[in-house]
Amino acid sequence: MKIDFIYERTVNYYETDKMGIVHHSNHIRYLEESRCKWLDALNIPLQYFEKQGFMMPVLEVNCEYKTAVTVGDVITIKPIFTQYNGVRFTISYEVLNAKTKQTIIKAFTKHCFTNDKLYPINMKKYDKHVDEIFLDNLVSDFI
Amino acid sequence: MKIDFIYERTVNYYETDKMGIVHHSNHIRYLEESRCKWLDALNIPLQYFEKQGFMMPVLEVNCEYKTAVTVGDVITIKPIFTQYNGVRFTISYEVLNAKTKQTIIKAFTKHCFTNDKLYPINMKKYDKHVDEIFLDNLVSDFI
Amino acid sequence: MKIDFIYERTVNYYETDKMGIVHHSNHIRYLEESRCKWLDALNIPLQYFEKQGFMMPVLEVNCEYKTAVTVGDVITIKPIFTQYNGVRFTISYEVLNAKTKQTIIKAFTKHCFTNDKLYPINMKKYDKHVDEIFLDNLVSDFI
Amino acid sequence: MKIDFIYERTVNYYETDKMGIVHHSNHIRYLEESRCKWLDALNIPLQYFEKQGFMMPVLEVNCEYKTAVTVGDVITIKPIFTQYNGVRFTISYEVLNAKTKQTIIKAFTKHCFTNDKLYPINMKKYDKHVDEIFLDNLVSDFI
Repeated sequence: MKIDFIYERTVNYYETDKMGIVHHSNHIRYLEESRCKWLDALNIPLQYFEKQGFMMPVLEVNCEYKTAVTVGDVITIKPIFTQYNGVRFTISYEVLNAKTKQTIIKAFTKHCFTNDKLYPINMKKYDKHVDEIFLDNLVSDFI
Repeated sequence: MKIDFIYERTVNYYETDKMGIVHHSNHIRYLEESRCKWLDALNIPLQYFEKQGFMMPVLEVNCEYKTAVTVGDVITIKPIFTQYNGVRFTISYEVLNAKTKQTIIKAFTKHCFTNDKLYPINMKKYDKHVDEIFLDNLVSDFI
Repeated sequence: MKIDFIYERTVNYYETDKMGIVHHSNHIRYLEESRCKWLDALNIPLQYFEKQGFMMPVLEVNCEYKTAVTVGDVITIKPIFTQYNGVRFTISYEVLNAKTKQTIIKAFTKHCFTNDKLYPINMKKYDKHVDEIFLDNLVSDFI
Repeated sequence: MKIDFIYERTVNYYETDKMGIVHHSNHIRYLEESRCKWLDALNIPLQYFEKQGFMMPVLEVNCEYKTAVTVGDVITIKPIFTQYNGVRFTISYEVLNAKTKQTIIKAFTKHCFTNDKLYPINMKKYDKHVDEIFLDNLVSDFI
């Protein structure tokens, strides 16, 4: 099942800093929000993984800051699986100002699947259901 | 114009702490979120005040923690003006777990109106429009 | 053993907001920092409690905001036990601008001791050592 | 003037998440802390730039997560200028667990100098003093 998913949220006051714009660290948190909501939409919420003792730690974060947003601005985030091999996966994100359609950040995060001892596991072996959903939504030609 | 307003939001992963529940400081942020959305609904958004050089600093926060929530839980916040005299006002909050209807926190925040030099000002004198909205939504018998 | 303890820390950039000052929710976090460092100084660090399956949830927070601080400002926090009965305790805080000696906030937090099921427990019964330290540092005449 | 600088800080409780470890977004904040303290040590604090209307926005953040830390752990951060051309600069960071000496994250941040209209400016032209300090501390062979 391939789904179209876009997460939308408004910037909060407490997420701004002295420059009057969203502090750069908060964009990393927005990415996590969109990932979680996306997994919900894919019908494999975080709780699904937790129940089976699986974890998805963040291995790497990369974020290029393009334009600023501030309190009251609405942003849209579209997460996209751009790499997946059963153990590791990369999510890229299209993050736009909902009003101006300008790119706010260009970002990707890398993750892996582990058991509760943080030992890497292969979803192709452990959970065919998750594996299929990831494969269905993999976009290999994303630049 | 008296309005009915309830703010709903889902708890994010990054808002939990080592105890597995929302860190107590984040509830203070949720209250601010609900205040801002409420002012939007009342048609006097934060930006309305900023444009006229008015500020609404927080003078006091009080929060009693009743039950815990964690990532994925949905909370509802109903802000209520419980005191208002033109210069100072108190907002009380009904904060519930959307599913169980249990009270999560009991809280109030106190604020005042100031100009951009942080000098207190009286809305009854400076902005009849805001004054009316506050009076219309004042609930003096809230316990 | 009664100890004198003051926690000092510098305000970080990411703790400021659009008003150019520390966001009010962060002061609640500073209080927690000072509590933890204080327990370290009292030789009963958080880890001591965790090892024995004890927890100290926050029951209530009250904070009055007096003067603002911003990035680079140094604040000092002096936590003081002002109530203690074996199960519940209150900590009050003297929070000053290290340079100007002005009061930044007036605050207290209320806590209780629980086991890992969040069931209240009495330190007078469960841990005489902790009980003594709390009694030695209790300041009952704090206004 | 070339200086040796290492920033040390203890992990706070509120910086942990449900996994029991520091949330990955907080490491980005620790990097900022170390940058600010480093600029202080170099005698060109943030306030020096602000007074002259200069800003140093973050253009990019990259962070690879290697080992976890939790509340009470002490981390050391050594920021290093690894690229600088007058307008843009890169800072790399050695981030270690103070006790185990294990690498916690591998990270770099990219920045540029701008005026208060966010228009890029060249420090070689605008401030010879800053330019010299950056050149003195540039480590071009950092891998």
